[in-house]
Order: sequence, then structure tokens, then C-alpha cells
Amino acid sequence: MKSKILRLLKESDGYLSGQQICDYFQVSRTAIWKVIEQLKKEGYQIEAVRNKGYHLTESPDVISRAEIESMSKGRWAGGHVVFYEETDSTNNRAKDAGEKGEAHGTLFVADRQTSGKGRRGRGWESPAGMSVYMTILLRPDIQPVKAPQMTLLMAVAVVEGIHKVTGLCCGIKWPNDIVCRGKKICGILTEMSSEMTYINYVVIGAGINVNQETFPQEIEDRATSLRMELGCNIRRAELIAAVMESFEECYETFLKTEDLSGLKERYNALLVNKDQDVKILEPGNEYYAHASGINEKGELIIRTEDGEEKTVYAGEVSVRGVYGYV
Amino acid sequence: MKSKILRLLKESDGYLSGQQICDYFQVSRTAIWKVIEQLKKEGYQIEAVRNKGYHLTESPDVISRAEIESMSKGRWAGGHVVFYEETDSTNNRAKDAGEKGEAHGTLFVADRQTSGKGRRGRGWESPAGMSVYMTILLRPDIQPVKAPQMTLLMAVAVVEGIHKVTGLCCGIKWPNDIVCRGKKICGILTEMSSEMTYINYVVIGAGINVNQETFPQEIEDRATSLRMELGCNIRRAELIAAVMESFEECYETFLKTEDLSGLKERYNALLVNKDQDVKILEPGNEYYAHASGINEKGELIIRTEDGEEKTVYAGEVSVRGVYGYV
Repeated sequence: MKSKILRLLKESDGYLSGQQICDYFQVSRTAIWKVIEQLKKEGYQIEAVRNKGYHLTESPDVISRAEIESMSKGRWAGGHVVFYEETDSTNNRAKDAGEKGEAHGTLFVADRQTSGKGRRGRGWESPAGMSVYMTILLRPDIQPVKAPQMTLLMAVAVVEGIHKVTGLCCGIKWPNDIVCRGKKICGILTEMSSEMTYINYVVIGAGINVNQETFPQEIEDRATSLRMELGCNIRRAELIAAVMESFEECYETFLKTEDLSGLKERYNALLVNKDQDVKILEPGNEYYAHASGINEKGELIIRTEDGEEKTVYAGEVSVRGVYGYV
Repeated sequence: MKSKILRLLKESDGYLSGQQICDYFQVSRTAIWKVIEQLKKEGYQIEAVRNKGYHLTESPDVISRAEIESMSKGRWAGGHVVFYEETDSTNNRAKDAGEKGEAHGTLFVADRQTSGKGRRGRGWESPAGMSVYMTILLRPDIQPVKAPQMTLLMAVAVVEGIHKVTGLCCGIKWPNDIVCRGKKICGILTEMSSEMTYINYVVIGAGINVNQETFPQEIEDRATSLRMELGCNIRRAELIAAVMESFEECYETFLKTEDLSGLKERYNALLVNKDQDVKILEPGNEYYAHASGINEKGELIIRTEDGEEKTVYAGEVSVRGVYGYV
């Protein structure tokens, strides 16, 4: 009920009468008053005027189940949120829930991670109140070999969600880092549990730097946050809801063909490596090439210096821009 | 120490003196005597003759950590055993341990499973004292897309292990069912936890029907056990050790090329579908074809009725023999 009252308050232009809310939920005015008091304690500024009703004047940057669900516009992605003030990592929570049968589309969000995960078991800086740590649990009925492509859906969704909420245009560094002016603003980690020919579940986690004002010296030339780019704080719950809205749409497009053919143009339009010279790093070998974008499998299409056109896939190689980090 | 004393007793032709064992382990005769008493309680027949020493006259069909480790001939596969009298499923135990960092090669064995797993979350009959339920935890440094091929390694290892211990020749029904005279004797379930381009771990479980004398009516025409084929009980620990010995060798051959090119002839020699007519079932479509064996990726090479040669991969299709179940 808290999520829904919050949503009613947000959607209402003027005052929302206590009676209206009572009628909607079929509960007493005291029950409504209790929820309003709870919301105030969480930092929501709610005016209560006799004979007019309640009016939400300001939402704080809280992330909570109620706040995120009240903003959710999707039909299934992120409509059910499991929220942690603090947890080890949202990917771990989503994987645990995946083992236990939790439903497709459930979103795991934390304000703070005690052991945030980067790729290959590396750590990820996860202080409280600063970032979005979110992981969606998915149960696609596709072959496991196709699942790695899904990480690119989240890359598109994060860039689009950031743009929708803030107007900022970020880019994608192939395959799935989100960057702004050459610095990383979001990392994505996809994990899967599968049988030989059957996916148990996929979890896709995104860690977005939102309200940081500084970074530790050793990464300050490679990391940035939305606040550092925009000069103001961003409401994280709104950002989460916007990313989920875009993700849901990307995912449904992906499932139609079980590949990226319906999304590759959208992805390539955001790709900072598109039509750029890149350095290809493969085990024991480095060479320069010109990248033209991804194909429908998410592989990067490159032309080597001797004119050969070929594709490389993530994991086989990594890609650096010729100048700088990206 | 128990595993090692058991191994010394098994490897000794005649009597093994208490003093020899004491010297080997640098412990007191009382400590040795205690271990011998424990082994006797577990059903081992051990003669103790003054001035001669200990002599193992008969091993029971116990499966225990000590028994399996005492028989293990491999360097890493199954050298460390985690044994359960009863657990939900050995695949689940291996996955849990995989999440917690347990080492490559650890083998999980149970005498009874309370919720044995078939493919796609289906159940698997798992009574006590009858079967081998074993799952090996692996951490291969290969691309996730190649992992499904590893299930075929276990198929070869199970057939070879059974043959070594009992002399019985079973076959493989593509891709990974083990059959004997058209009836299933072992199922294999491979599960993986991976990132987009990195394997966290792979677990490969095998459930072998060993000492069953009957099966429930609804599966009796499709299932068999080693006892039903051979007319005598089989020592399960010996079978487990033999399967692991073969698996270790197959796995190392696989890793050299990261595909099945070094094993496909061995696999094809055991394949009951080889050079046979098969019925190919794909979603919404069925057709007949002639199967000639697997290629280096584990795909089945078939020739359709209009003469086209092509490959099919597990999950995309399933295969039935033209006559009967296999």
C-alpha cells in the first residue's frame, strides 16, 4: 500500500484528499495517516491541509522498495523490488533468489554493497548513498550460448535511462562499459546459471556512479559520476525506474529474434568505438584495427590494417581506444 | 589417515604389520588400532594376527570419503571427496561449494538424494544404497560457450569406468545418456555458473543405477541397473574411482585443444546412434536422418533423406532411434 499511496501522491497535481485514498484502498483514515507519517520519517515532504488533503512537495533521494515500485512504469521488469540497505552484492542476492525459484523480472537493489563484484571475481567500490546497485533476475527460454548477448541490452538501457532522467549523453565502450567523456560511469556484470541446453536464470547487475563528488586517487582519471558531470544530485529511484523501463523494451525486442538484430542500430548509435581506430588485445597478441560496430550477435566488426574484415567477440579480445582509456 | 590406512591395506598382498603403519604415519599403535576398529564397524573384514599384523579380507559396498579416496588413482579428479549419507542433490552441494570457492576437482558423493535432479528441474529417483550420485566441481579457464562440450567427457568416462570395473559394455545415446540394451543406466546433468566471458565453475553430475533389482512400473521398460545386467552387486566406491580416473584423462585431452577433436573417435566408438537412422525432433518439426557421429564441437552430424549433410546441436533437437527408446 505504501508504494501505491506514494504513486498516487506523485501522480496527483494538487491535493489528494484522505477520503479519496480511503475509498481507493478501502481502509480507515487512521491507516492512511500512519503510512503518511512513515513516509515523512523517510524524508518525504508532505503537506496536510484540512479540507484539502495531502500534497507531496518534495521527494528525498531515498531508494526503497516503495519509492522504486511507485516509479516503475514497466509491466514486469522491476515491478517487484527486493531492497537492501546493505548486502554483499546485488548479483549474489539475485543468484540466491534465482536458485530458490524467485520470479522473472524481480529487481534487487542495495544502498550499499559490502563486497561489490566486478568481473572475474574482482571487487567494485560500493559506498552508501552514492550509487545505484541493481540486478535484475531473468529466466529467458533461449539457448545458453545466446545469453551473453543480453549484457548489451543492459548497456543500452543504462545509457537511455540516464539520458531520460538527466539529459546527459553517455556512450558504450564495447561490449558493456558505460562511459562519459572517456571516463567510466557504470559497469555491468552478467552472470548465468545454466544446464547444457537450458538456462536456469540470468542475472544482470549494473553499478552506476551517481552522487559521488570524488573518487580515490588511483581511479580518479578513469571514473566519473552523474553528479560530477552535471553538478547536481540525481534521484536514484527515478534513474532505476527509467533504466528498467528501457530494459524491458530492449529485452522484448531481443526475444523476438533471440539476437540483437532489432537493437544493433540503437546500440551502434551509442557505441563510442564506432568508426574508430581501436587496439585489439588478445592473449599474446596486439594489433590495431578500425571498428565499425556490432553485428546481430554482439560481436565487434573490425577491419585490420591489411584490409581484412572480421569479427571479434568479448572475452576473446579486449578493445582500447587508440587515445586514452576508452 | 583413515583413507591412507585403507589404501595401504588394499595394496598389501599379505599382512601389514602394525609397526609398519606406525612408522609410516609416526603415530602410536593405539591410534592405528582405533582406526582399524572404526573400519571394522563400517563393515570391513580385517584379520589381526599377532606377530604378523593386519590383513583386509573383504571390503563391503560402503561409499564413504575414506573408501573413495583410498581407491582414487587420479592426480586431481576426485582426490578430495565430500561425502553425504543424504543430501538434496550432489549437483546442488557442488554448486554451493563452487560459490564458496571450493577447489577444482572436488568430488561430491551421496548415498541418497532427497531431491535428485534431472534435466530442466525434473526429478530423479534417488533411493539409498543403490546408486552412485556423484558430481565433480571444475574451474576450467575456457570460454563459457565451450562448456557444454564437457558433458560428453563424463559420458565417455562413465562408460569406460563401468567397463573397467565390471566388463559390461554400455553405449552413449547422443549427447549424454548412458544406455545398455536400449535401457538407460546413467543420466548426466551439467550445470554452469558463468559471467559473459568467464566461467565461475562447472559441475557435472552423474547418477548411475548400480544395485537396483527392480524399477517402478512406469519406467521399468526404459531403465536398468548394473546388477540387473550382471546379476551381482557392484562396489560403488570402486566404480566412482574408475569413472574419475577416466574423466581426469578425458578432461586433460579436452583442454589441450578446448574441443573434442582428441576425443571424438573414442566417443563415436561408444555412440549407439553412430551410423544409425534417427528421428530428429525439433520444436514443431520431426524428420528422419542418418547419423554418422559427432564432430569436434560435440554436434551430431546427420544426413537428411534428401541427401543434405548437416549438424545439429543438443537442445536444438532431440534424437530418437527409429526403433524403440534409444
